[in-house]
Amino acid sequence: MTGEFARIDRWFRPLAAGFPGAFGLTDDAAVFAPGPGRELVVTMDAMVAGIHFLPDDPPGDIAAKLLRVNLSDLAAMAADPLAYTLVTALPRAIDDAWLAAFTAGLGADQNRFGIHLAGGDSVMTPGPTTLAVTAFGQVEAGRALRRSGAKPGDALFVTGTIGDAALGLDIVMGRLAPADPDARTYLIDRLRRPTPRLEALALLRQFATAGIDISDGLVADVGHVAETSGCAITIRAAAVPLSPAAARTLGAGAAEGLARLLTGGDDYEIAFTAPPAHRDGIARAAAAAGLAIAEIGTVEPGPAGQVSVIGHEGKPLAFDAAGWTHF
Amino acid sequence: MTGEFARIDRWFRPLAAGFPGAFGLTDDAAVFAPGPGRELVVTMDAMVAGIHFLPDDPPGDIAAKLLRVNLSDLAAMAADPLAYTLVTALPRAIDDAWLAAFTAGLGADQNRFGIHLAGGDSVMTPGPTTLAVTAFGQVEAGRALRRSGAKPGDALFVTGTIGDAALGLDIVMGRLAPADPDARTYLIDRLRRPTPRLEALALLRQFATAGIDISDGLVADVGHVAETSGCAITIRAAAVPLSPAAARTLGAGAAEGLARLLTGGDDYEIAFTAPPAHRDGIARAAAAAGLAIAEIGTVEPGPAGQVSVIGHEGKPLAFDAAGWTHF
Repeated sequence: MTGEFARIDRWFRPLAAGFPGAFGLTDDAAVFAPGPGRELVVTMDAMVAGIHFLPDDPPGDIAAKLLRVNLSDLAAMAADPLAYTLVTALPRAIDDAWLAAFTAGLGADQNRFGIHLAGGDSVMTPGPTTLAVTAFGQVEAGRALRRSGAKPGDALFVTGTIGDAALGLDIVMGRLAPADPDARTYLIDRLRRPTPRLEALALLRQFATAGIDISDGLVADVGHVAETSGCAITIRAAAVPLSPAAARTLGAGAAEGLARLLTGGDDYEIAFTAPPAHRDGIARAAAAAGLAIAEIGTVEPGPAGQVSVIGHEGKPLAFDAAGWTHF
Repeated sequence: MTGEFARIDRWFRPLAAGFPGAFGLTDDAAVFAPGPGRELVVTMDAMVAGIHFLPDDPPGDIAAKLLRVNLSDLAAMAADPLAYTLVTALPRAIDDAWLAAFTAGLGADQNRFGIHLAGGDSVMTPGPTTLAVTAFGQVEAGRALRRSGAKPGDALFVTGTIGDAALGLDIVMGRLAPADPDARTYLIDRLRRPTPRLEALALLRQFATAGIDISDGLVADVGHVAETSGCAITIRAAAVPLSPAAARTLGAGAAEGLARLLTGGDDYEIAFTAPPAHRDGIARAAAAAGLAIAEIGTVEPGPAGQVSVIGHEGKPLAFDAAGWTHF
């Protein structure tokens, strides 16, 4: 057996054991179908060492992030996770210890999120570790949550807290050194192990008119919703929820730091719009799901695609180019 | 707009125009379902510059190979192509001319094979160009052709001709220099632009008990069928079909060259098993589809996974380790 077959046998085949349509990874392809009256929701995301993670990040963290950014896309479309396929392009230096930790990380998240490996490909690369996942979810036919459904008058909501991962990246890159070790640990964990907001699925299906997961940054991703929906959106900066760790770490440099949090990305929270009449229903559903949800803005008639951020003093905030990657 | 969004807009969005469930690549994921009573067949394959293609190969050829190796997997499962998702991890040096030629190649094959881009991801890499495709086909529920259905007494068939791509690679790598320029062109084209045998779908559905596409090499891939089906398979070397270009190029060094052809891989022909009683039906169906099919061996009770190759003189051929990657 060559390396590829041996690796698949030892490390990846066990991850496909619970999914009949994967055929134990013996065939050319996997076979499955959505349930009756349901459609498949399909997303594909890639991560490259040195770009999306650091080569010496813990392999279990890399595995978790790889799956979770894809699961976050499914959550944003209000889809139940089903399965995933995986491409690994690995340098020769990758050893069994790395593979053991990486696949253990995949296995732990499979159990946590109820998904299975269904197939994929394993190749060598002379370059950096490159990973790609295609994730499959399912949703009642015609009911996938889109970016395009926001209506003027809708309120803008967001799950969880914003900006933790941006601060986590600053810490990892040595640009920021919080005095509080717990804050440091928390913020790095939010960067490396984002939480796909699957507990928001029921609420999104019941109330949301549009949704997106925050990967490029709150302002940029809300901009995608505004552009696709043909309206403008105003965000109230004071209403954007920060974690205690982020608030403590920001401290006195809050004005400059806020721009970083609102544009930093990698949050993997869900931003969604809904009619304000559902405000109480959303609050109750969020409480029932154990999920923090904040109302942070409003949808306006136009100009299409425009996002305005109102600062703590009621004045519009300006961002430099780095924060406005979409415009 | 940053590079990624501009690239998606300009080069990739047009490729998704014909597929409603791609939503013009505006959303977090694509949405689609197999037809009534059908299942999805899903395969994922990756290619890395310097490993699976040469960095200065024509971008249109790289695009064609990327799609076709995936379509070949669908053909081996007897599935009709439906759509694909694409990850591109591209170095900074990739320019618009490369992207124009690459996406033109994708577009040409989309038209030829009736598929559409449904989504994906576009990232930068400090390493070599790395490409991954997830291809989606559909098949009548429960009727995907597996590797596991071969039965002792079945005959082994193969589409097209074997070994052209192995010779094409030898030429590209400077290890072989055919005197005939037409043979040279033909063999390189077979390496760079394999033909997924979608015209075999009807025939496979009607007659085949097991199937696989030949990517690792005829002997290794027939070995996968033998192993998964729990039987042995004998191949008659004299019956393995060679193209005129391959036969001419081999010439006098036939004995040594034959091992290279039977184990070289990258053929993307379909090897399949079927009861010998269907021999005439298969021949008629192949003629109707304009497809060359040859009967090249037999399935035997065991030992499971064993592949024997009988040479032109009736004696078993031995192969060195390079030809037996699976054992």
